[in-house]
Amino acid sequence: MHEDRLFPADPGERSIARRLYAEVAGLPIVSPHGHTDPAWFAYDEPFPNPAELLVVPDHYVLRMLYSQGVRLEELGVPRLDGTTVEGGPVEGDPRRIWRTVAEHWHAFRATPSRLWWEHALAEVFGVTERLTPQSADAIYDRIADCLSKPEFRPRALFERFGIEALATTEGALDPLEHHKAIRESGWQGRVVTTFRPDTVVDPDTPGFVANLEELGRITGEDTFTWRGYLAALAARRRDFMAAGATATDHGHPTAFTADLPPAEAEVLFNRVAAGRPGPQDAELFRGQMLTEMARMSLEDGLVMQLHSGVRRGHNAWMQRVFGANRGDDIPTRSEFVDNLRPLLDRFGNEPGLTLILFTLDETTYSRELAPLAGHYPALRLGPPWWFHDSPEGMWRYRQRITETAGFYNTVGFNDDTRAFPSIPARHDVARRVDCAFLARLVAEHRIDEDEALEVATDLAYRLAKQAYRL
Amino acid sequence: MHEDRLFPADPGERSIARRLYAEVAGLPIVSPHGHTDPAWFAYDEPFPNPAELLVVPDHYVLRMLYSQGVRLEELGVPRLDGTTVEGGPVEGDPRRIWRTVAEHWHAFRATPSRLWWEHALAEVFGVTERLTPQSADAIYDRIADCLSKPEFRPRALFERFGIEALATTEGALDPLEHHKAIRESGWQGRVVTTFRPDTVVDPDTPGFVANLEELGRITGEDTFTWRGYLAALAARRRDFMAAGATATDHGHPTAFTADLPPAEAEVLFNRVAAGRPGPQDAELFRGQMLTEMARMSLEDGLVMQLHSGVRRGHNAWMQRVFGANRGDDIPTRSEFVDNLRPLLDRFGNEPGLTLILFTLDETTYSRELAPLAGHYPALRLGPPWWFHDSPEGMWRYRQRITETAGFYNTVGFNDDTRAFPSIPARHDVARRVDCAFLARLVAEHRIDEDEALEVATDLAYRLAKQAYRL
Amino acid sequence: MHEDRLFPADPGERSIARRLYAEVAGLPIVSPHGHTDPAWFAYDEPFPNPAELLVVPDHYVLRMLYSQGVRLEELGVPRLDGTTVEGGPVEGDPRRIWRTVAEHWHAFRATPSRLWWEHALAEVFGVTERLTPQSADAIYDRIADCLSKPEFRPRALFERFGIEALATTEGALDPLEHHKAIRESGWQGRVVTTFRPDTVVDPDTPGFVANLEELGRITGEDTFTWRGYLAALAARRRDFMAAGATATDHGHPTAFTADLPPAEAEVLFNRVAAGRPGPQDAELFRGQMLTEMARMSLEDGLVMQLHSGVRRGHNAWMQRVFGANRGDDIPTRSEFVDNLRPLLDRFGNEPGLTLILFTLDETTYSRELAPLAGHYPALRLGPPWWFHDSPEGMWRYRQRITETAGFYNTVGFNDDTRAFPSIPARHDVARRVDCAFLARLVAEHRIDEDEALEVATDLAYRLAKQAYRL
Repeated sequence: MHEDRLFPADPGERSIARRLYAEVAGLPIVSPHGHTDPAWFAYDEPFPNPAELLVVPDHYVLRMLYSQGVRLEELGVPRLDGTTVEGGPVEGDPRRIWRTVAEHWHAFRATPSRLWWEHALAEVFGVTERLTPQSADAIYDRIADCLSKPEFRPRALFERFGIEALATTEGALDPLEHHKAIRESGWQGRVVTTFRPDTVVDPDTPGFVANLEELGRITGEDTFTWRGYLAALAARRRDFMAAGATATDHGHPTAFTADLPPAEAEVLFNRVAAGRPGPQDAELFRGQMLTEMARMSLEDGLVMQLHSGVRRGHNAWMQRVFGANRGDDIPTRSEFVDNLRPLLDRFGNEPGLTLILFTLDETTYSRELAPLAGHYPALRLGPPWWFHDSPEGMWRYRQRITETAGFYNTVGFNDDTRAFPSIPARHDVARRVDCAFLARLVAEHRIDEDEALEVATDLAYRLAKQAYRL
Repeated sequence: MHEDRLFPADPGERSIARRLYAEVAGLPIVSPHGHTDPAWFAYDEPFPNPAELLVVPDHYVLRMLYSQGVRLEELGVPRLDGTTVEGGPVEGDPRRIWRTVAEHWHAFRATPSRLWWEHALAEVFGVTERLTPQSADAIYDRIADCLSKPEFRPRALFERFGIEALATTEGALDPLEHHKAIRESGWQGRVVTTFRPDTVVDPDTPGFVANLEELGRITGEDTFTWRGYLAALAARRRDFMAAGATATDHGHPTAFTADLPPAEAEVLFNRVAAGRPGPQDAELFRGQMLTEMARMSLEDGLVMQLHSGVRRGHNAWMQRVFGANRGDDIPTRSEFVDNLRPLLDRFGNEPGLTLILFTLDETTYSRELAPLAGHYPALRLGPPWWFHDSPEGMWRYRQRITETAGFYNTVGFNDDTRAFPSIPARHDVARRVDCAFLARLVAEHRIDEDEALEVATDLAYRLAKQAYRL
Repeated sequence: MHEDRLFPADPGERSIARRLYAEVAGLPIVSPHGHTDPAWFAYDEPFPNPAELLVVPDHYVLRMLYSQGVRLEELGVPRLDGTTVEGGPVEGDPRRIWRTVAEHWHAFRATPSRLWWEHALAEVFGVTERLTPQSADAIYDRIADCLSKPEFRPRALFERFGIEALATTEGALDPLEHHKAIRESGWQGRVVTTFRPDTVVDPDTPGFVANLEELGRITGEDTFTWRGYLAALAARRRDFMAAGATATDHGHPTAFTADLPPAEAEVLFNRVAAGRPGPQDAELFRGQMLTEMARMSLEDGLVMQLHSGVRRGHNAWMQRVFGANRGDDIPTRSEFVDNLRPLLDRFGNEPGLTLILFTLDETTYSRELAPLAGHYPALRLGPPWWFHDSPEGMWRYRQRITETAGFYNTVGFNDDTRAFPSIPARHDVARRVDCAFLARLVAEHRIDEDEALEVATDLAYRLAKQAYRL
């Protein structure tokens, strides 16, 4: 890993970027949004092998290899029904999976997956060679060897990574037992949960009515009345706060919001709770629930995150045969100006609310999101998300958002990852790109270097802590 | 202010940019579109104080501070109903308003507001320190002191700024008395008006029918007949031309145009003039009127500007409590290909018509606007507008438009400002960014430096004069 | 032509770009998609004169000059009805047409047309002066002189350009006689056809029913039955393969696809074949036919190209008076995520199918196309198309696509041109810009230089050959 990676080539800009980065490179990691598994930290068991750690759960890696003609079975992904297929059974040898990745490693050139892998291999496992079919076995052996040692267990890595706080994400019906186990273990690492109620607020969720029933069972509320349902959600929010949560997260197909009169909301709820939604009811109910969640956030102080605008499971065959999160979620066009208006009409002027917006439609950066966040006190902009969590994606984000919304209506970086060893890599990429962006502003005399240094620190550390109330 | 600000960091590019800029920095300012107050030039009274000059009327500044949790009352903006609110009354001390800005000055880092302020403070008022809570009082005093001197009155500044021509914008019902006063004063500064008929062509305007009545009163036409209404508009255009106007300006929600048969247009007019528009009538009538205005432009020679694609007054509470133009106008997705077709079918092939298009939806630059302007003789593209009137915004504009439309289907720069002291700053930013863009083309051997110099001059001066017939 | 044109200004990046370019500059040209005339290569007759070679057929040049107020008649473009017009008859003197271009040459500054012309003038005809009104006659004479020599005939130029394979595009009803003549001539140049069935699959085509009749006549099938129609298309595909075709090409208004049950498809076909399509039938039928074509491609191995998202003939007057392809085709907003789903549900997981997507809506690069191509094995992304086949357009394409789809889900370069002398210029621009893009990645330590060199070669040569099975 070159020490100047991701810095501008111009020597003047590069030297400024180096100076800025030197000040932020070692700051603690605040990871306020992500999808790591709390069980890792609760029980601190060793990770099984390189393929199961780095390949099988990483949908970025799966999708790229699949697009190049590699079958998921060759990558160790089993079919839901357990059958094998023409071409052989599911690959069970992690070393062979690893070799398949190495054979197609060129496909990842200039992708963030490559940056994250190389950082993890070099910084976490001390691998300095490039991954090739020739080097694959030796690298596999080295990582496998590391994984057998105590200093590569989850808690040791957490501490070595310098993580000050890490948020996982759990559904509204989650028993939060791993978080309980973490707290009871006496380990000092700060791992908190995040309240993600999608499966009990989205009537399109398979099993939605059963989910309501389960929500009632957990909370002791009558979740088939509007009042009881809202009380149950408020109760679960309290449970999550007891497990450290400072935020909620909402994954919706669109940013549509609604603010119905209470009686209409109740009638709508009664239709969806009875499993008899009308054609527009699911979207309307999701929209209404975002506004209800904003109301509850004003009451209990949880920060609200909205991740919208993705067509989940675009590949029907893959969904059927392999299930969700295999790399076939595709972004869609998004709209915030009309969609958020009902919620903003109700709560947009409240400085006590923080609603953090994420998008996969970069056209909304300069047209909608920056103007909205540059006006409403309740709005903040999350970092570039998913496909755009990459050097070019980060540049586009800063270039299109900063002039209208400034730096201080954004909230620093979220790694949003399921891949634990990639956390330091992802934060490092963000810190480097922000320093590179700021270096250009300094070199072009658009801000002074002392100001850039303050901004770099805020983007790397302080803004995330502050926005997420961590 | 660093003399190389906004120039590329690469030394080779920078030296080309410097050479180009040296030739255009001192050219006169042609300001063919903006929102300064003609009364300033008519009566030449001193500006009251730094806050009322630079803060209270600047919706860019208001919105950023509001987004960061500052109440508008703290910035001296009164509620429409005169009430005070929790947290105290409206701030009446301009010095305290100034201090509030200074306390939040970091929020403006890397925004164009910051560039404009610093330019105005340095070049107009000789302030060389950075604005901070510590320096706020001294800077306030210096500006206040300047404002008391004759050389800081509007006409003196107009001359010092090197303004060759300045267009203000007045509504169709404006008596144009300030423009009359300017002409009668014997002062030689060229300040002209622009005909903006929105309130008499947009049936969604509150008081639309009363406006038609007033239009009839002013012109002596029967504005409740289609023929009389059109005659009244033609008459008002002549009045505006007598006050120096060379252009009209149209602020529409969309770029929709229509070209109805005359009898249908008349029937439509009768519905809207009676205050009984059908559900689609307002949009249809606005669209028809753009085509009627194009027809009149071909007759009387006024250049036509279209500013479309913004949701005015997105924040209902703010509109109700504080009124319009407080920073809550939000851009929307725009469409030009189908929307402009009726007007273009009628007049797009007329080299005698000039229709200048502006957009807040940057996705239309390369997809719609450059291809349209690169074909129709009647179309020209206005400079990056409002949120995009910024260094990055200008780069995006040139990068996405030039390869399809060239430089010569664009019309130079418009400052579009209400903030008089920012005029030189805004033109300076545009000149610097255009020189930086051209320097890159020269450095990459895409055009020669002698050509770049000609283009730089055209963009800074000649194209605006020519396109607006000034 | 400067040897470093289009390379970054930074000396470090530039030296990397030079090294990469040195390795790919001389690679053979693979031109798998374009619109040159096979008759040129069949009969090898001299090109008539500079204006008819470089101006009259080039709609890029026509539209820019027209936008600047030049009438098409002045450029030698006749009216369809043969009439002359106010301002004089159609210009018949190619030298005067040439002079008109020279007088407006400044309008092309920083456009790709200018790059292509200068390359052709310098590299093909040895012209080293800039085109100006003063130099126009001498340059005209030099080119005219060249055109009279045998080494400037089509086949000699083909060989001099280093073209390894060139695909033209012919409609489904084309007799392919020129391709037959090429093969029978014994000349060794590889010129192949491409099957473009738009006029027999798009019910909105004027004369669609007559086209079906003609398709029946050519193939001996009953093209007024669904079964016979499909058999006729399959037969024509075989004919095209016999003339060297390795690909089909589909120009559709949108990327809409459908996958109807066979019985419904047949009923739909019966309505359109009878000339009585319902209001949505044309779009539905086009969409169904894309899926049918994908099915046939899986059978016969032809690669499939989809060019969608353009409003052809936007200028009604120009269409009526001058006809098609005069520079008034305007891109529109495009959508791929929902539109392609029916086809992808059916065939997206087939590694044996290659569907190459092109777009004029750059907002789809990072939002839709890269995520789709980064997942589905059947999808590949074509190079930046038409308005975006330009240095800035190519940068945007690589910057927005690579991080999600990598380089290896793209297919290298297509020149897509009707202007034969511009072929080397266009490939040279693409090679230079790709090397510049790769040089930046190397300079920022995002990939290593040996990898960049491999990618540069793949983008310049290997990927096109492989994707198009040439």
